Formats: sequence, structure tokens, C-alpha cells
Amino acid sequence: MGAERTNRVVRVAAAPEGRLRPEHFSFSDEPVPEPGEGEVLFKAIYMTLVPSMRKRVPTAGAAPTRLTVKVGDVMQGGPVPPINGHTGKFIGHVVKSNAPGFAPGDFVLGGAYWQTYHLARPEHLFKIDPSELPLMTELGLLGQTSFVAWYGMQKIGKPKPGETVVVSSAGGSIGMVAAQMAKIAGAKVIGIASGEKAKFVVDELGLDACIDRTTGDVGEELSRLAPKGIDVYFENVGGVVGKAAFARMAKFGRYVVCGAASEYNEDSEVITFPLLPFMGNSLTMQGYVIWDHYDLYDEFRREMLGWIESGQMKFRNEILVGFESAPAALADLMEGRNKGQVIIQLAENPLE
Amino acid sequence: MGAERTNRVVRVAAAPEGRLRPEHFSFSDEPVPEPGEGEVLFKAIYMTLVPSMRKRVPTAGAAPTRLTVKVGDVMQGGPVPPINGHTGKFIGHVVKSNAPGFAPGDFVLGGAYWQTYHLARPEHLFKIDPSELPLMTELGLLGQTSFVAWYGMQKIGKPKPGETVVVSSAGGSIGMVAAQMAKIAGAKVIGIASGEKAKFVVDELGLDACIDRTTGDVGEELSRLAPKGIDVYFENVGGVVGKAAFARMAKFGRYVVCGAASEYNEDSEVITFPLLPFMGNSLTMQGYVIWDHYDLYDEFRREMLGWIESGQMKFRNEILVGFESAPAALADLMEGRNKGQVIIQLAENPLE
Repeated sequence: MGAERTNRVVRVAAAPEGRLRPEHFSFSDEPVPEPGEGEVLFKAIYMTLVPSMRKRVPTAGAAPTRLTVKVGDVMQGGPVPPINGHTGKFIGHVVKSNAPGFAPGDFVLGGAYWQTYHLARPEHLFKIDPSELPLMTELGLLGQTSFVAWYGMQKIGKPKPGETVVVSSAGGSIGMVAAQMAKIAGAKVIGIASGEKAKFVVDELGLDACIDRTTGDVGEELSRLAPKGIDVYFENVGGVVGKAAFARMAKFGRYVVCGAASEYNEDSEVITFPLLPFMGNSLTMQGYVIWDHYDLYDEFRREMLGWIESGQMKFRNEILVGFESAPAALADLMEGRNKGQVIIQLAENPLE
Repeated sequence: MGAERTNRVVRVAAAPEGRLRPEHFSFSDEPVPEPGEGEVLFKAIYMTLVPSMRKRVPTAGAAPTRLTVKVGDVMQGGPVPPINGHTGKFIGHVVKSNAPGFAPGDFVLGGAYWQTYHLARPEHLFKIDPSELPLMTELGLLGQTSFVAWYGMQKIGKPKPGETVVVSSAGGSIGMVAAQMAKIAGAKVIGIASGEKAKFVVDELGLDACIDRTTGDVGEELSRLAPKGIDVYFENVGGVVGKAAFARMAKFGRYVVCGAASEYNEDSEVITFPLLPFMGNSLTMQGYVIWDHYDLYDEFRREMLGWIESGQMKFRNEILVGFESAPAALADLMEGRNKGQVIIQLAENPLE
């Protein structure tokens, strides 16, 4: 191993009280591990940021949860080990392999810890065919955030032609996929997003309208844009936005609880829902955790590949460089400041 | 027509502020109507009381809703006209018929207004075969309350063998049917009921346990009786009971919103639900209104007749005499003071 081959490792250095900052993490160069029998060593090229990573960071003064990483430990990006390659947060190329079916140079999806070199067993890796689609598609339209959008919209929301669907965080990596699926299903789709993204989802993704949270009153705008009520509400944010949508659900409305980013911080406003509208309007509210549904990943992948091929599904990434950019980017993500899927570039893509 | 043939009619006389009392209604003897072309005239023998009737009574000082009856108008027991005979609130026998298929002496299910003589078109009547089962079974195990229980438990709750199911108002006409279906499905079934009914549902209906609201702390008892959490909660009451159950839902729990009797009064405590547990525990909360699901009535009836035949389904009625007993009985029903299905006897049953 040459001197240049060191493993960049990100550890939780302190439990923040509020917004994540780089000083809450430590960045160190550590020895590259050696793969054991049946293991693969891969070097990361890209890492994706997802909102659920925020829950891995402990909060100052709060009791740890089953998800939080201890101060001093390596930051986690998802379940350890990954449930399968598709739940991995990194795209990389194989450096060494002691496992059948994997050879140096192969591109893989996998990994959970915030570091550049990853050891993995084959069952926790997905081998990418780089001739098919750009590498990043595996973290984007074929990745976890997109699968999250698919399960929530297709298996819970089930929009029908002519229905009115509202998607919060419509410019985020989950929201933009969920919104486009509702369009493909023939629904009228209203996004809720901030600033530039509100324009992007209408102009580039073809949504029927988008409420800009930074300039409009979400409740009033929803009343105006969805005069017959909301048939499907895709919840990514919670808080006052969720409350405004709940109050406008149509009969048989489905309120899909995908995320509640605005409620993840300790000090955030928490909304609550009354019981009687569930009866009065025959509402359904349903939450899910994508880890429970990977048995449907192949169905999702087939459907998504069809939409990609037919040009019906668009996506955009925001690419940042180096682990040092990740803490602020994760804080921005929680506040909806990202533009699409946030990818952290950790090494050059040898295919570019 | 003889002098004894007068139509006893119940009108709303005043909008109550709180508990219903007989003085909020007027009871008058009015002329018996004549059936027009294609109409049937039947005389009521039994009326059933259902909690939703409470919503028909206006509240002093409150704006009328789309359901409330105006002061001075005949009290309504359900949609007018009934969606079909099965949604009717009265069992009676035909006195005159100008409609094919119906003849004097036929027993029918139908009617919506609180009165003894009813005009109805055939599509709003169900002709009862009195040789099959006791007449009252059509208002009981084959009636609306039982259908409500079936839809909520079988189509939303979907209990699986070994799961833990909690049924509130387990001694009421809906709850006792819902609870027995969960037992038939192989679940552990815990009832919540008051006083004598808590004993009845365990001793007579075979529930695994029942929490007596009048003596126990519902939350503590639920924690003790459902240590692994609640897979299906069948909501009939709302308020603090609903809140205690929601806090103890297991992963993938289904919270079936059938009713919220304790929240129907203007001054009652209203509970609210937070959003995050929906994600954390992948919960579903779903409400329904039975009027939307009568396309499934035949499926329900077949299944219920099977359970009646095999002796797996028990039921009990509380029989009161005369319309004058109905206001207090409806108030009692809202407070869970009834013992099973409340039937108001309005005339002698000629079969008894």
C-alpha cells in the first residue's frame, strides 16, 4: 500500500445543540483496512446524503436513541451492515476482493459509515453495470430516496387520474420523484417547495403548480389550488405545512407519512391531528420505513427503469466535494436548502 | 282505517345543550299516510338505536351541520331515503302495498324517520324471511352495526393469528361483533368496557381480557395486558382511551377509526395525535363511513351467516319499550351505559 492510500474517516466529535456544523465532526486519515476472507474492499467515489442521517447525530443534553452514534464513533449513514447493496450510501470501485464475483475495478453500491474505504461482504453490495446508466443513477433514480418515494406514492398514496396530489419538499430528492409519479398516474400535482425549487419543479418537472413556502401562505394557496380538497398528501416536512394539508384533505384522502423533516430537531414545532376528520372524511394516514419493504425493490427498479427509458422521469443532483462539506449540507437538507439529491464527491469518477 | 291506527311521530322539540332528555323531543299521534303508486306502507315493530343518531340532534348555540335535523322536524335515524333496506333502522310488517313483490304481512327492514308508519319504495326495503332467523337478527348480527364492525375489523384492521387486538366499547353492539371477529381470526383480544359489560365480554363472548374503564387505569392496564404493543386498535370512543391506545401501538399497528362517541358532544375532550409515531412505528390510521361500502354487504352477510350457523358469533340486545324511552337511551348509548344493541319495541312482534 502506498503512502497516498489512507482512509479518510469522519467521527462524531460533539453532540450539537442545534444546527450541525463541521466542528461537530472530526476528520482523520487512518490506515486502510485489509479485507478478510469473503470480504471486498472498495474505495468510495460518491456518498449520498439523506435526511434520516440527521437522526444518527446525538443531541446535546438529550438521551441517546437506538439510532444515535456515540461521540467519538464513526458517523453512520444508514443501517450497519446495509440491508443489501441498494441501501448502501456509497458508490465506489473495488480495490481488493477476497469474495467470489467481485474483482478490482468493479463498481459497487454499498457502505454505511462515513469513510472512504469500506469493507463489505457480497450480500451487502450491489454490483453496478456502468455501461447501462450513469453511475450516480444508482444513488438517484434507482437509489433509496427514489425507492422511498415509490413505496409511499405507489403503495400508499395510489393516485388516480384526475385526483389532486400535493407533495411537500417537492424539489427534494424524494419529493421530485414522488411528484413525477403522481403526474405519470394522471393526477393534478401541486408541489410545496422553497424559492428556486418551486420554479424548477413546475418548469422542469412539469408539476401543475408549486407553492413557494418562502413567499406564500401555504394554507391559502392550497385552498386556491386544490378547491376540491387533497386526495393524496405526500408528507416530507410535518409542522405547519402538514397541518395546513391535513385540514384540506378530501373524502377518502390518503396522507402518506414519508418524513417530517421540520420536526426532527429537538426544538421544532410538533403538529397533532384530531380524530374526527378521519371518520368525517374517511381518511387514511400511514407511515412507513423503507427498510421493511426491500422485498419490493425489484418491482420498483423495473418500473423506474421503464420511466427512465421513456424519458418520463427527471432528476437532479447537487454535487459537493469532500466529507468536510457534508455537515453543513446535512443541516441545509433538513432546512430544505438543497437542490435535489445531495451527492458528496469523495474521489474522481474514473469513467468521467 | 280504524281509530287505533295513528302514526306515532317523534319530532325534535328543542336543541339540547348537553345530555339528551325526553323534553328535547315531542311525541304526537298523526294520520297514517297512504302509500302512493309503487310505494309500500309498513308498521314498525322494532327500532334500533345507533350512536350516529346523536349527530342528527342539533346543539343549542351551535351552527347546524349537514346532518342535523331542524327543530320542529321529524327526528331522523339515518340517511333519507335509506341507501337500501339494510341501512334501515326499523323492522316492521307491511300494512298496504302498491309495489310488486310486497304484500300485507310481509316482514321488512327499512325506514329512517322516528315514527311508527313508514312509506317506502322497494329499493329502500329488505324483505325478511322470518322462518330463517329471529326477526331482530336483521337489526343485530346482520344489521348496520354489525356490518360496521365487519368492515372496520376485516377490511382495515385485518387481524392475524397471534396478534394483539384491542376493542373499545367492547360491550356495545359494534364492539362485541368486532371483538369476536378478531377472536375468530386467532388474535388475542382485549376489550375496554364499563362495569358489567367488562365481565360479560370475557365470560360470555370469550375475550381474553377486558379493562373496566370505571375501575382501572386504561393506559396501565393496556401496558400490562399488551406488553408487546397493540397490533389492531378498534376505536369506538376516542378521548383519553384512544390516546392511551395510540401511545401503545406496535410496529405496523392499525388504528381503525370506527367511532369516537366520547368526542361527539360539544363539550367533550378532543384528543390529537402526533405525526412522528406514524413513521417510527409504520402505523396506519383509517376512518370510514359505512354508507360508502354497501357494495360489500353481501360478502359480509355470507360470512356472518356462516359464523351464526357455526355458533361462533354471539350477540345481545337491550330491549326498551316506546319512542319515549329513546332519548335517554340514546344519551346512555353515547356514555356507554347500554348493554349490547339497544332495540326500541314499538309494537308487538306477531311471531312471538
